[in-house]
Amino acid sequence: MGEPAGIGGEITIKAWLRRKEHGTPFIAVDNLDRLRKISKHLLIDLPLISVNDPEMAIDIFEDALPVCPIDLPNPLKLGKLNQANSKFAIKSIKTAFSFAKEGRVSAIVTNPINKKIVYEGGFNYPGHTEYLAALSKSRSEPVMMLACHTFRTVPITIHCSLREAINKLSEESILSQTRTVAIALEQDFGIANPRLAFAGLNPHAGENGAMGDEEQRIIAPAIKVLKDEGLNVFGPLPPDTMFSADKRSTYDVAMCMYHDQALIPIKTLNFSKAINITLGLPIIRTSPDHGTALDIATKGTADESSLVAALRLAANIARIRCCSAT
Amino acid sequence: MGEPAGIGGEITIKAWLRRKEHGTPFIAVDNLDRLRKISKHLLIDLPLISVNDPEMAIDIFEDALPVCPIDLPNPLKLGKLNQANSKFAIKSIKTAFSFAKEGRVSAIVTNPINKKIVYEGGFNYPGHTEYLAALSKSRSEPVMMLACHTFRTVPITIHCSLREAINKLSEESILSQTRTVAIALEQDFGIANPRLAFAGLNPHAGENGAMGDEEQRIIAPAIKVLKDEGLNVFGPLPPDTMFSADKRSTYDVAMCMYHDQALIPIKTLNFSKAINITLGLPIIRTSPDHGTALDIATKGTADESSLVAALRLAANIARIRCCSAT
Repeated sequence: MGEPAGIGGEITIKAWLRRKEHGTPFIAVDNLDRLRKISKHLLIDLPLISVNDPEMAIDIFEDALPVCPIDLPNPLKLGKLNQANSKFAIKSIKTAFSFAKEGRVSAIVTNPINKKIVYEGGFNYPGHTEYLAALSKSRSEPVMMLACHTFRTVPITIHCSLREAINKLSEESILSQTRTVAIALEQDFGIANPRLAFAGLNPHAGENGAMGDEEQRIIAPAIKVLKDEGLNVFGPLPPDTMFSADKRSTYDVAMCMYHDQALIPIKTLNFSKAINITLGLPIIRTSPDHGTALDIATKGTADESSLVAALRLAANIARIRCCSAT
Repeated sequence: MGEPAGIGGEITIKAWLRRKEHGTPFIAVDNLDRLRKISKHLLIDLPLISVNDPEMAIDIFEDALPVCPIDLPNPLKLGKLNQANSKFAIKSIKTAFSFAKEGRVSAIVTNPINKKIVYEGGFNYPGHTEYLAALSKSRSEPVMMLACHTFRTVPITIHCSLREAINKLSEESILSQTRTVAIALEQDFGIANPRLAFAGLNPHAGENGAMGDEEQRIIAPAIKVLKDEGLNVFGPLPPDTMFSADKRSTYDVAMCMYHDQALIPIKTLNFSKAINITLGLPIIRTSPDHGTALDIATKGTADESSLVAALRLAANIARIRCCSAT
């Protein structure tokens, strides 16, 4: 569902309308009245079927949007946050997660939530990624990957100030995240011996220590350890030039040192089709890489491209995992 | 000339070969033997004419490449740095600068130099930008702008570590650089009432102080002062989403808080045509936004696109300044 007042319902409906094109059946864990209201807004006569068993969704999907119903006790106004409703976004994540954990669905795709309102409602996790890690009682730290076609980036640090990101950067965090990424690229993306390029932290990757020493002190030693483990790693590269078209073709993932170093190149190139994937979880989870877009929630202009790409990628990963398991 | 062992000569020759297309006459401040050697490498029978008065270049340019000769006392090996030669790159900048300062040429375009070798030879400036500022005895700090078609970015801090960039960020530096940029966009680019968008420093522009306070403490107050001065300024914007195609069309320049925040989006989009412009100097100076590329200096594969774009932009600025002066 995502944030009830946001564009999650609209893009879900639009993704269902494009079902023949993407061929990925799904069940919406969402509120029935909300979806009816949104389809009315969109001037669409949307066939909805309430389903409690997600296994049934696959047969229904061609003719109607299957919905596993979620309560929304308070009146819904699109574009207006209402804390009493927002917490049901979390309920929807939890339900979808259980389905995946029990093997009743192949993957989950999460629509955007409004962090501020769920924090105020007592939600204690920085975001989806950390919440799903807690639900799955995963011992390893989950890793966030951004992807757009064959261009992928991973930020080593995520949601903290830039100053804190520099302070937090450690050989240990680079090692553990890179190992998770290397395994995921092989197992989930079917890339044998993936090429991992490391960005420097500083301009020109520090120019041999002339502008910052993190490359020499932290990043290069981590790369050495990973290379000794047999991984196909290289860098640290000057961050400004490593995302040009020529350079992007030389690696399968760019390991980045902070949030915006990873997100700026992906979103500069193709904002509408970027996908967020959580690696290192026992379940498959992808998500469109945009926010709740409250400002356009009543306009009918929301772009479902990123959600469709997220659905497709989740299905692809499920297929690859399934094939390699047999 | 730029670094004698680099690709500067090759792209200069290729830019001259494309003279009919770009229609921008220039004089190379370079070494005659070097250019002969490179043209031989490129299998081109290059007509060269040695010229001491740059005013003569315009009549020669159609039929031959006019060259204001620079000495190179030591044997030249393309791709191999030789400090005894490298210092003549600085001589070439100084000569070109004098021509511009005396009004004998409309603008200068600088080919890339190798910083390490000129530093070792006693060059005391971080780069071209600061050297030209010193030559012109400019009181205001020069500002570096990156441009690619209508997309322009300015880093508020340039060549320092990321940690230092955060420490250096101040309301004062934002104010002085933004004023220089606003004047240049009007005077040099002919943009009336230019729109200046400010990036935040932290992920999501800090989310109201949840991830860093520089937005509230430094950037927003600076924007307020500039708005009160009548400038068309807005932000701070989340840095990851502000460079998407949709957002880029809403501003004429993105004012960025550190080197890579400004350079990553430009080079991700179009590495080969990005241009570097120095604002706030009494003379016009542009430059291709790439390095000396020593590794391909003998291959004949260097791409002259960025130099041609830099020549064109320099000529355009000269035309705009000339028109508004009459």
